[in-house]
Amino acid sequence: MTAKSKSKKLQRRRNDPEGLRARILDKAADLFQERGYHSTSMHDLMQVTGVSAGALHHHFPTKKSIGLAVLSDRVGPAVRAAWIDPVREAPALGKGVAEVFGGIIAGLRARGAVLGCPLNNLALELALTDADLRRNVESIFAEWRTALAERIGATRGGAKLDGKERAAAANFVISVYSGAMNLAKAMQSAVPLADAADLLSHWLHQHRFAS
Amino acid sequence: MTAKSKSKKLQRRRNDPEGLRARILDKAADLFQERGYHSTSMHDLMQVTGVSAGALHHHFPTKKSIGLAVLSDRVGPAVRAAWIDPVREAPALGKGVAEVFGGIIAGLRARGAVLGCPLNNLALELALTDADLRRNVESIFAEWRTALAERIGATRGGAKLDGKERAAAANFVISVYSGAMNLAKAMQSAVPLADAADLLSHWLHQHRFAS
Repeated sequence: MTAKSKSKKLQRRRNDPEGLRARILDKAADLFQERGYHSTSMHDLMQVTGVSAGALHHHFPTKKSIGLAVLSDRVGPAVRAAWIDPVREAPALGKGVAEVFGGIIAGLRARGAVLGCPLNNLALELALTDADLRRNVESIFAEWRTALAERIGATRGGAKLDGKERAAAANFVISVYSGAMNLAKAMQSAVPLADAADLLSHWLHQHRFAS
Repeated sequence: MTAKSKSKKLQRRRNDPEGLRARILDKAADLFQERGYHSTSMHDLMQVTGVSAGALHHHFPTKKSIGLAVLSDRVGPAVRAAWIDPVREAPALGKGVAEVFGGIIAGLRARGAVLGCPLNNLALELALTDADLRRNVESIFAEWRTALAERIGATRGGAKLDGKERAAAANFVISVYSGAMNLAKAMQSAVPLADAADLLSHWLHQHRFAS
């Protein structure tokens, strides 16, 4: 790279506050997922992003503000992409849930390590840390539950249920997934998720929630 | 307290290394549960126990050694008391699982806060931190799974299953509980656990695992 193009690149970075913010959030989301929120310091973020203290604090005056932004701009969209959109768009709920599990299991096997669900990981770390962070975690779970409850309500089994029962069934699906992911992370194996997918698929069919 | 009785008390403490060790582990288990392993320093432990650096390091030369001891001497026994023993001793599995959930839900409601399952919390924090800590977490899950799989094998539905299928069904029960506890912690509400208890009870009956 010539000195001129390097200087142009630096110029571009300086003039690209959105790009800088995105880069910080990407790294923060990665570190929160690998080490956890509490084990990631502002200093760590400066080191891995190469961003100055001034620039980091300009975008995120506190670690909490990074936590809130990671939840809204990274974890929320990840849960939407992995679970909520496929559940909404699947031709049938049973098939949709099976494909979600299949995709996640394939991803774990390709990676060779189980980092866990980013929402779960942050949920357990942040639930007692700060009320705002917890409420943001809860709102992602609520969006996930709503999408599942709506699909359940549109099935033959779900049509007979009231709103509370649909929400309970949706929470059950989320619980099976979250708990199986906990076990998978503890065992560093995709087996608990594969087993859970089979038994959950059977459960959806039994309750006539599958289609 | 007179100077003499105070000196006797100090003398007793000095001569009670087991008591001191137990006191450190109790506090460490509490702090790991409230703040997490990573957010608890050796210095925090000295402060809350009033134990000197020398005495703390005599019992636990590293934080990892405290983590291992909390798992083996506090979390393992807690999972045995809350889940494994009741499952082994219940007249019927369905009733045993219902009582376990009932007891845990009553405990959460009495406390007014959901700290989460100590095994789950440490599992997510430690799975990627250290191989020994992760293996100790995994061995507690394995003991829990074995107890459930044995009881499932002794039911009408479970008698037809092979060992792998019984283990999968046991993992499913653990997953429902763990995941519902995650949700309960995120929402700071016992509702997801109460819903999970109902649906899991129904599931156990449907598969003829209940008795």
